[in-house]
Amino acid sequence: MSVRIGLVGTGTVGGGCIEILKKHHDDFIRHYGIDLELVRVCSHNPEQAVEHGVSDIFTQDYHELLADDSIDIIIELVGGTTVAKSIVLDSLAAGKNVVTANKALMATFGQEVFDAADAAGKEIAFEASVGGGIPIIDPLKHSLISNEISSVMGIVNGTTNYMLTRMGEAGLSYDEALREAQAQGFAEANPTADVDGLDAAAKIAILSSIAFNSRVVIGDVYTEGIRNISPVDLEAASDMGYCVKLLAIGHRRPEGIDVRVHPTMLPLNHQLSTVSGVFNAIYVTGDAVGETMFFGQGAGSGPAASAVMGDVLEVARHVMAGVKPLVGCTCTDKVPIIPMKELKMKYYVRFTVHDRIGVLASIASIFAEHNVSVYSVVQRGKKVGGKVDLVYVTHTACEADVSAVLEEIASLDDVLLAEPSVIRVED
Amino acid sequence: MSVRIGLVGTGTVGGGCIEILKKHHDDFIRHYGIDLELVRVCSHNPEQAVEHGVSDIFTQDYHELLADDSIDIIIELVGGTTVAKSIVLDSLAAGKNVVTANKALMATFGQEVFDAADAAGKEIAFEASVGGGIPIIDPLKHSLISNEISSVMGIVNGTTNYMLTRMGEAGLSYDEALREAQAQGFAEANPTADVDGLDAAAKIAILSSIAFNSRVVIGDVYTEGIRNISPVDLEAASDMGYCVKLLAIGHRRPEGIDVRVHPTMLPLNHQLSTVSGVFNAIYVTGDAVGETMFFGQGAGSGPAASAVMGDVLEVARHVMAGVKPLVGCTCTDKVPIIPMKELKMKYYVRFTVHDRIGVLASIASIFAEHNVSVYSVVQRGKKVGGKVDLVYVTHTACEADVSAVLEEIASLDDVLLAEPSVIRVED
Repeated sequence: MSVRIGLVGTGTVGGGCIEILKKHHDDFIRHYGIDLELVRVCSHNPEQAVEHGVSDIFTQDYHELLADDSIDIIIELVGGTTVAKSIVLDSLAAGKNVVTANKALMATFGQEVFDAADAAGKEIAFEASVGGGIPIIDPLKHSLISNEISSVMGIVNGTTNYMLTRMGEAGLSYDEALREAQAQGFAEANPTADVDGLDAAAKIAILSSIAFNSRVVIGDVYTEGIRNISPVDLEAASDMGYCVKLLAIGHRRPEGIDVRVHPTMLPLNHQLSTVSGVFNAIYVTGDAVGETMFFGQGAGSGPAASAVMGDVLEVARHVMAGVKPLVGCTCTDKVPIIPMKELKMKYYVRFTVHDRIGVLASIASIFAEHNVSVYSVVQRGKKVGGKVDLVYVTHTACEADVSAVLEEIASLDDVLLAEPSVIRVED
Repeated sequence: MSVRIGLVGTGTVGGGCIEILKKHHDDFIRHYGIDLELVRVCSHNPEQAVEHGVSDIFTQDYHELLADDSIDIIIELVGGTTVAKSIVLDSLAAGKNVVTANKALMATFGQEVFDAADAAGKEIAFEASVGGGIPIIDPLKHSLISNEISSVMGIVNGTTNYMLTRMGEAGLSYDEALREAQAQGFAEANPTADVDGLDAAAKIAILSSIAFNSRVVIGDVYTEGIRNISPVDLEAASDMGYCVKLLAIGHRRPEGIDVRVHPTMLPLNHQLSTVSGVFNAIYVTGDAVGETMFFGQGAGSGPAASAVMGDVLEVARHVMAGVKPLVGCTCTDKVPIIPMKELKMKYYVRFTVHDRIGVLASIASIFAEHNVSVYSVVQRGKKVGGKVDLVYVTHTACEADVSAVLEEIASLDDVLLAEPSVIRVED
């Protein structure tokens, strides 16, 4: 009996899936007794269908896939939360199992998707939505479930990790690093989703939901990107024994879930600090397992297709055995999200200011006024044209107080020459 | 409906399982709808039963567990290949699913165990047999199966990784590092299984079997331990941009499977080089996913119990859903093992010799005679009492030729003052 697949989306990842199917069709039969048959392919792009050699089974209307009763599994690789949402929900309603790589959809409408799968008695699988080819959702939903997970932290955006790596090792400015990443094909022409942390926010919402058994959506995630980071910051961090990563953080605390994405100072001896370039890694801490890390390529045709097809093969096993979904939504608790303002941590803040008498004193008094205790202040770099970088590191302070400090300093007349660079410290 | 568990073995890992069951019983019901009930515990050690608070369900005869028709899953944590083998095979024959942490059993009698499970229509799960708490068997059997795996390499023995780390960072001798590891509880009083590489050999046999879909048993694994390694070697490696790890290596080559355990020089920029102390990591390369790594604690009560209980919960899901085993033995191919003598690689060899005129010349002529081309020779360390360390690094050479070189040099009268340290290079 073959398990019949309909594919929606013929871009990079879709192409990777078609390639795997062609290359390993016979291996899957021999090793696992699974005979996968790609019976229908849909996208808005007939040229890609020709390119991938699937124009004979191509359509531009996904409803044709839904109407084909022989199709067991629909792969959704359209992305976004509009058409993709309809495809996923309609497919489930039509009695198809669905495999998707869609992080935005799962991080925004995850509950709705799970409910639809549940109502249809079908499976929804989405390993490729986080960490590309790295197995992380499956381990969290299977191997690690005897643990209470206290923390899940990840470098889940390859673009920004590449940029930060290059800024650190070659002293590139933010703009230079971005241009280099674009030239290498690691960053989009419009890099917003990556550099502003939105991509990472969707991923940590998904990971936190699974890890903490409580629904976290992208809107719950406090998000800051890397636009204000400069090589000065990476150099300063390094001098203090830290590196700077755009970290996606989920902590389960007694009072709720602490979930956020922002530039983060990590001790150099932390295992995540060893993850450089476009690589991704997710660091999971559980009460029994202790510390674990899952490392690999977070993007690209092959890695993402590896995850998608892993899901397809797993669902196919269930289809063949006539097994109903074994694991659905596991968000059985309703844990509150801790408001960002209430969090306490250490802060690194760099101000680019006019080199003038009195600036240090007025900044110092504003920190003091808001009860933020300063651990160190260092002037970094050369004075250029009357500009100077002042680097502050605080003792543990409350986010609300630090925000107030930043606001008040920003309101000072003619002091700041650029937006401050704020890096939170994760010890 | 509860899923009923029988536990055989009440040592460190068994204790960890009992603890998880106590702590998270209600969580498992709430999150996953799985009600686990520990109904019978067996070992030779009634004191441990008292200690773990299970003396009311304790027996010293495992046959009582087999005779209890209400038991769905037997956990085997006895270890070894004698009694444990009977427990596992008898349990399967009695219609129980089995979860085990037994690497020696799976690496030696894996096929027999799978056949017994198959005949009984029951499951055998063994995530804890490799890498402690690190999910690796499950990812290889699920998330990554759309890949053709070309390589699986691991630091899978925490004892030796701790020792090598300490020898490197603190210049400890082998004996000092061993004593320290023993004092810390990271090494056994009899460290043979660890330092001679036997523990790692069992693990790479298991990983290779799964990764390459072909049965590899412990006897197939060429194995050398770390007894001849000294701080001089770690220092020399570091100078060349390498670290030294006891690496368990499985490569799928066109001509067969290359599987071995030995001290290995790894480039410092390889991700496995960042794994220090008692941590373990497994590095997997697949044709679609590219490079991935799974990192965590390879031993200890919590980590091992995490893996065991992860398996138990997964099997319990299947029991509750009335699902027959979905994945059994996947060794569907019969790929030959490449004899060690036929492999080609680069070698680092350190000879401790009498500091005498003529020694360099006679060693050089023996390398030449066997067609082993020397890339560099360096005298390391201080001459002490007429002793000197000569470090050779070869170009790519054949194992058979290098063996012949080593044999002939060993046979020279009055030249070697210690067994040579041989470290193979993995680039």
